[in-house]
Amino acid sequence: MKTLVIIRNLGLLLLVTSASILLVAAWSCIQWLLGDPSEKAALQALIMTVAGGGLVGMGLWLVGKRARHTVGRRDAILLVATSWFVAAALSAFPYRLWTAFADIAPTDCAFTNYVDCYFEAMSGLTTTGATVLTNIEALPRSLHLWRSLTHWLGGLGIVVLFVAVLPMLGVGGKRLFRVESPGPTPEGVTPRIQETARVLWLIYLSLTVIEILVLRIVGLTWFDSVCHTFATLATGGFSTLNSSVAGYQSVAVDTVIIIFMVAAGVNFGLYFQIIKGRWRSVAGDRELRCYLGFLAIGSALVVFSILNRELVTTDGTTIANADLGDAVRYGVFQVVGVQTTTGFCTADFDLWPFLPKFAMLLLMFVGGSAGSTGGGIKVIRFMMAFKILWAELERVFHPNVVRPVKIGNAVIDTEMKLATMVYFVGIAVLTLLGMVALMLFESGKGIDSITALTASIATLNNIGPGLARVGATCNFGWFTSSSKCVMILLMALGRLEVMTIAVLFFPRFWRGD
Amino acid sequence: MKTLVIIRNLGLLLLVTSASILLVAAWSCIQWLLGDPSEKAALQALIMTVAGGGLVGMGLWLVGKRARHTVGRRDAILLVATSWFVAAALSAFPYRLWTAFADIAPTDCAFTNYVDCYFEAMSGLTTTGATVLTNIEALPRSLHLWRSLTHWLGGLGIVVLFVAVLPMLGVGGKRLFRVESPGPTPEGVTPRIQETARVLWLIYLSLTVIEILVLRIVGLTWFDSVCHTFATLATGGFSTLNSSVAGYQSVAVDTVIIIFMVAAGVNFGLYFQIIKGRWRSVAGDRELRCYLGFLAIGSALVVFSILNRELVTTDGTTIANADLGDAVRYGVFQVVGVQTTTGFCTADFDLWPFLPKFAMLLLMFVGGSAGSTGGGIKVIRFMMAFKILWAELERVFHPNVVRPVKIGNAVIDTEMKLATMVYFVGIAVLTLLGMVALMLFESGKGIDSITALTASIATLNNIGPGLARVGATCNFGWFTSSSKCVMILLMALGRLEVMTIAVLFFPRFWRGD
Repeated sequence: MKTLVIIRNLGLLLLVTSASILLVAAWSCIQWLLGDPSEKAALQALIMTVAGGGLVGMGLWLVGKRARHTVGRRDAILLVATSWFVAAALSAFPYRLWTAFADIAPTDCAFTNYVDCYFEAMSGLTTTGATVLTNIEALPRSLHLWRSLTHWLGGLGIVVLFVAVLPMLGVGGKRLFRVESPGPTPEGVTPRIQETARVLWLIYLSLTVIEILVLRIVGLTWFDSVCHTFATLATGGFSTLNSSVAGYQSVAVDTVIIIFMVAAGVNFGLYFQIIKGRWRSVAGDRELRCYLGFLAIGSALVVFSILNRELVTTDGTTIANADLGDAVRYGVFQVVGVQTTTGFCTADFDLWPFLPKFAMLLLMFVGGSAGSTGGGIKVIRFMMAFKILWAELERVFHPNVVRPVKIGNAVIDTEMKLATMVYFVGIAVLTLLGMVALMLFESGKGIDSITALTASIATLNNIGPGLARVGATCNFGWFTSSSKCVMILLMALGRLEVMTIAVLFFPRFWRGD
Repeated sequence: MKTLVIIRNLGLLLLVTSASILLVAAWSCIQWLLGDPSEKAALQALIMTVAGGGLVGMGLWLVGKRARHTVGRRDAILLVATSWFVAAALSAFPYRLWTAFADIAPTDCAFTNYVDCYFEAMSGLTTTGATVLTNIEALPRSLHLWRSLTHWLGGLGIVVLFVAVLPMLGVGGKRLFRVESPGPTPEGVTPRIQETARVLWLIYLSLTVIEILVLRIVGLTWFDSVCHTFATLATGGFSTLNSSVAGYQSVAVDTVIIIFMVAAGVNFGLYFQIIKGRWRSVAGDRELRCYLGFLAIGSALVVFSILNRELVTTDGTTIANADLGDAVRYGVFQVVGVQTTTGFCTADFDLWPFLPKFAMLLLMFVGGSAGSTGGGIKVIRFMMAFKILWAELERVFHPNVVRPVKIGNAVIDTEMKLATMVYFVGIAVLTLLGMVALMLFESGKGIDSITALTASIATLNNIGPGLARVGATCNFGWFTSSSKCVMILLMALGRLEVMTIAVLFFPRFWRGD
């Protein structure tokens, strides 16, 4: 292990995070000067965090400054795995310090507990969107901005990581990314990492600017537009309202957010293709079609199931008998919100009948496309799994016929097939382990198994809401700190393709051999 | 497809089944002559079934008589897949006809409905042990004998099939059986099929005779000894008592049945090794150790969890505060009953806390060893899956180190690894599909998701009881006929290693190419 390299890079990460917090602090300062007294404590908290983060970051950077630049595979994995935990540790401080400076009682806000703050920060950076807050609207606006910004930074981080860094490491990404850009462009995204990262960053920034403008046009304030854009494009899910997006009571806002959630779940490499004018390659992309297909079938099923039934929105309105317009508006929004792993809600799907609820749970596992900000298992893996199962069935009666399994023009070799199936089994194992851990840590209060199971699913797949006591109108604040630690780990595991974190529990990883 | 060969063999199967029913009819006749009036209707039903089954069987056999003897792989698969369905169709008639001849009202016995009889027959032949009967003890004794005998025949059938027939077809069996007899005896079981089948039959028969004698010695009547022996060695689970084995209220009976349930879950090839005096090969068998390890760890966990808690036995006794003796007696019995997929119960584990209940559910998936009468996914597949996951984790940071995955001395190739992981995913998919189907077919009455999920698990893995409304003290009679058909299919799928049945839904299987 080249510990020094890791230390230097973590120092750099803390400096970047501090710089981001500094931007929020600057905005907070302006608000305070413009006469918002609630910003005072937040500003103090933000500045303290910047100071602390900057100092520690600088220290680490200085310690590791002399390290050589080349890193091995293990160093890179360790760096990726630790970076989310380290960034979350710093990102949690503005929340914690704000409750201290504002002198808020533990009964009034979960942020008086650092574990809760860490949960919120990890939920933000992993673009999960699960919150510990009961009254979200009680936060000062600068902390809303910071919460949303953690989404946006995490989303950017994961796209760059997935497309540029993980391929080098051969963790999921490489294989997936290789597969999902078929056709005449084997070079796909520019091979050089820095160039790739720059292009992705520009795409992400452009989408951000567009969504902010559109949301402003349909009636949101600039502030709300920015916060919801950050949460949408990162497939995060933090809102500034207790009732989430339903609070705007606007079909236009719902529609715009649906469109951008769908856009966020698309492989960002495809936007690069669009820029290059390769429309045919985009139109022919197998994963894109399959991704839209999942969304369409899921939406149709849910809309059909909730039609002519009672519908309760997240702002508490009860629609006694949902007509087609309501069913489409709320059905499509929840399906897109869940499958893209954003987790924005406008209706309480926990009250729906079994079938649409079960469909929602399955879509949570599907998730977005590879190379998008979406979580979950990813559409491409479902495509591969389906083809592999089909091929294995045929092998039973045609053992000697070797029919290559293909996605587009790319042939999937046996190693990749095995890795895909292992990933599914791994997710199933982690989901169940998470559920058992939550049941055990909550055994004092006694929670139901649906809550434990869906809390595990919702955090592992980076969705946000689950069912029952973690449903669309609930929050995660009531869990014990031990349970929150479990879910923090699940969020990180899900976000970093499981393996990147899982190897840390593997003794041989730490030995020199 | 060589349809004629299949027809001839199915005819033969009907003749063999009829011959078995004839034996029961002969016994029923003796009972009737000895003065048991309740046997009259049963005797009529049995004789009618023999006559009908004999005629149809003879007819099919004559139609197919001239067929050539060689069969292709597809014919063999089709034959195996259909044989369980055909045998169950005939085996159901004694139940149905008995209610007709005895003039029993539909409200008194589920057997007035043929689908229920078919469910019971399939549950018997697949050694599942799930029953549709509310009052089991109301059956005439000859039908008890027939119910138990379907277990025994099904168990024998599956061992022979697994060790002798499936290996030829390359469905699960071959690979598994190759792997699980490591060490100095690659020949393992005598390679020639007829010889192998003869040896397995003798082993099975010897174990049967021994268990009958032992159960008689510990106090059961000859009749009860025979019925419970059939249900134990086949890992079936049908009892002659409403309260299952708990009705004997005897530690000795519990202990004997535990021992023989464990014995039934062992690879029958190992008994062959013992006969040949190859003790070392048995002692060193990796799957045997792992199988016993699962049982031991599961038992320890459950015993610890139910200690000093209230325990309700299946005969309705409440033990207010289970001491170590009770906890061991009932804990071990339920764990062994469930993991070997027998499904005999002496305590209502649906009332236990979450952790032991969850452990029981997981053990349902583990099941017995390959080449035993036990169902489930099989211990060897869990061993392989664990090693595969471990190896894949290492590949993340050591992509160029190829460490072969081994069970004993046998190296597992990539194809076999893939097949193993595909099997796990397949079982997960079927479990969920079964659950959804049950929820939909029962939507009129509205059942809870735990009942639907565990009914799916308990039938697919050939266990018998599940949780909630299909728990240890409940039955499957209240399901709609559509749901029963779903579970009939699940039982057959689970029993025949999924693939054998699943290919029938694959269009290409039926085409000539």
